[in-house]
Amino acid sequence: MKLASLKEGGRDGTLIVVSRDLAHAVRANGIAATLQAALDDWSNIAPRLNALYAELNDGKAADAFAVDFNKFAAPLPRAFEFVDGSAYLPHVERVRRARGAEVPESFYTDPLMYQAVSAGFIGPRDPVVVVSEDYGIDLEAEVVVVTDDVPMAVTPVQAAGHIQLIGLINDVSLRGLIPAELLKGFGFLQSKPRSALSPVLVTPDELGDSWQGEKLHLPMRTWINGKWFGAAECGVDMQFSFAELVAHAAKTRPLTAGTIVGSGTIANEDTGTGASCLAEQRVVETLRDGKPSTPFLKFGDSLRIEITDHDGASIFGAIEQSITPLVK
Amino acid sequence: MKLASLKEGGRDGTLIVVSRDLAHAVRANGIAATLQAALDDWSNIAPRLNALYAELNDGKAADAFAVDFNKFAAPLPRAFEFVDGSAYLPHVERVRRARGAEVPESFYTDPLMYQAVSAGFIGPRDPVVVVSEDYGIDLEAEVVVVTDDVPMAVTPVQAAGHIQLIGLINDVSLRGLIPAELLKGFGFLQSKPRSALSPVLVTPDELGDSWQGEKLHLPMRTWINGKWFGAAECGVDMQFSFAELVAHAAKTRPLTAGTIVGSGTIANEDTGTGASCLAEQRVVETLRDGKPSTPFLKFGDSLRIEITDHDGASIFGAIEQSITPLVK
Repeated sequence: MKLASLKEGGRDGTLIVVSRDLAHAVRANGIAATLQAALDDWSNIAPRLNALYAELNDGKAADAFAVDFNKFAAPLPRAFEFVDGSAYLPHVERVRRARGAEVPESFYTDPLMYQAVSAGFIGPRDPVVVVSEDYGIDLEAEVVVVTDDVPMAVTPVQAAGHIQLIGLINDVSLRGLIPAELLKGFGFLQSKPRSALSPVLVTPDELGDSWQGEKLHLPMRTWINGKWFGAAECGVDMQFSFAELVAHAAKTRPLTAGTIVGSGTIANEDTGTGASCLAEQRVVETLRDGKPSTPFLKFGDSLRIEITDHDGASIFGAIEQSITPLVK
Repeated sequence: MKLASLKEGGRDGTLIVVSRDLAHAVRANGIAATLQAALDDWSNIAPRLNALYAELNDGKAADAFAVDFNKFAAPLPRAFEFVDGSAYLPHVERVRRARGAEVPESFYTDPLMYQAVSAGFIGPRDPVVVVSEDYGIDLEAEVVVVTDDVPMAVTPVQAAGHIQLIGLINDVSLRGLIPAELLKGFGFLQSKPRSALSPVLVTPDELGDSWQGEKLHLPMRTWINGKWFGAAECGVDMQFSFAELVAHAAKTRPLTAGTIVGSGTIANEDTGTGASCLAEQRVVETLRDGKPSTPFLKFGDSLRIEITDHDGASIFGAIEQSITPLVK
């Protein structure tokens, strides 16, 4: 099934079920008010949402309405946890090669992952609001999964059973703030503002044979200012599956229902598939030309992130955002 | 006023108002079901909670009951954001001196702060559950503040007006996992499991002249296995006020109501006040004796963290925890 949240009903939005073709939706009235509430009691709530989804797809759901993504909040407008992996090692290898450094051997067996901000996700059509262009504004197109309650110290096999929903994220990065922040040694904070989630999250069964081994085997399509930017294969060069990433996050603590686990920017060894973030593209240019030629995002720029199925149909809906200055 | 949450009513507990002397409490029925709900609408809810607090202290609240901290959840059993500063530079200076390194000049003007796990806080009397003693289990006694909604890019003066509640935290650290994790460059994840909050959070007015310049001017009293461990002065050697820490966190994004901002482990230049974490104590021993003599926590060990007012009365209630192994 496909789930989303409308910008109504409060800070956590209002849970809706969205049809497979993303054309229609229906409020989950009487089942769960919000997606967080659904995830809090997933084993009981999911079957009821699934039944409503079947009705909706059959054109039999009462009070169904036409979808307008502009009215969508993030499916989880605020979440209790977001941990973001960096599972595509070609990106890490390339960035390090550009500065003449090696990738530690451990990076191939121990996932790189950081505690990310989860307190507010912006809607799929909301602008990215930034104080200054000088911060070096970048998109990062990633796949995310959402878990139910995950016990502490689960194995990857156990973790796989806790992946309930899959979606996309534009993990906004302020590249200009990253070097100084990472140099301090405690990870990202100011360099990672609020991110946008895709219009809908979907259950693994919606992905058919494109979901195998807890990886999504489809290209991540990105555009900047309407121009093709990349179609990196999500299923290629992903060093760790989502099951392994969830288990990594849960090594020393349980994960609360509604935890979001990110893949990191999609990047392939084959640079012909394009990039999923400007930093990647600029590193490719630096390795090729000695310096980067693609600038970071400016106010007024727009981006688009989408994944389509084998028939060209959008699975999660597209993230479409513009970059705008903070008005105080 | 003093606010807490009972372990009843769901994942977010049930909001209660606790008397100034911590002896009695009353459910905030009809005002706000949870502390998060109160913070979501703070300007409307706080005056009503305050009125109930006055009734409770006057012995006039209907359905008041005797306090039993064992029935308390964390005041925020799950929160949307926790950012933890490291505002006591004597700790940073000492750790670096022990390994022959310098403290960067920028550390005195730019706060060190990391994105911490907020998805689950354990209650003030809940055990600290850890997989293995080999992880190097440590306490960290800190002061935290809780904000309402903080706009992006506020000044410290503006940020001060958003500090609504103050409390204590035992920010549990797994020291054995930290070096390898920090070496990866993306900050803490597995090395920071769930932490405990103090039984109650209090509004700044409860602290009288002990709250000045957005700092708490009282000693952080800690015990390990019933033995005095430290009484580091929270108001001494705190390089950045909570107003500055909140503004730092909000530089590139708004903070959602209910955001928790931590001070970092309390540590003074004067080692005579003792330590607030074992790592600190071990560094002091290393600088003095060439090697540490105090071990990290073992299963069965207990800890106590408390702050008392000038009359010796507990302000936040004590955090009292034992260390126990995970049973799978």
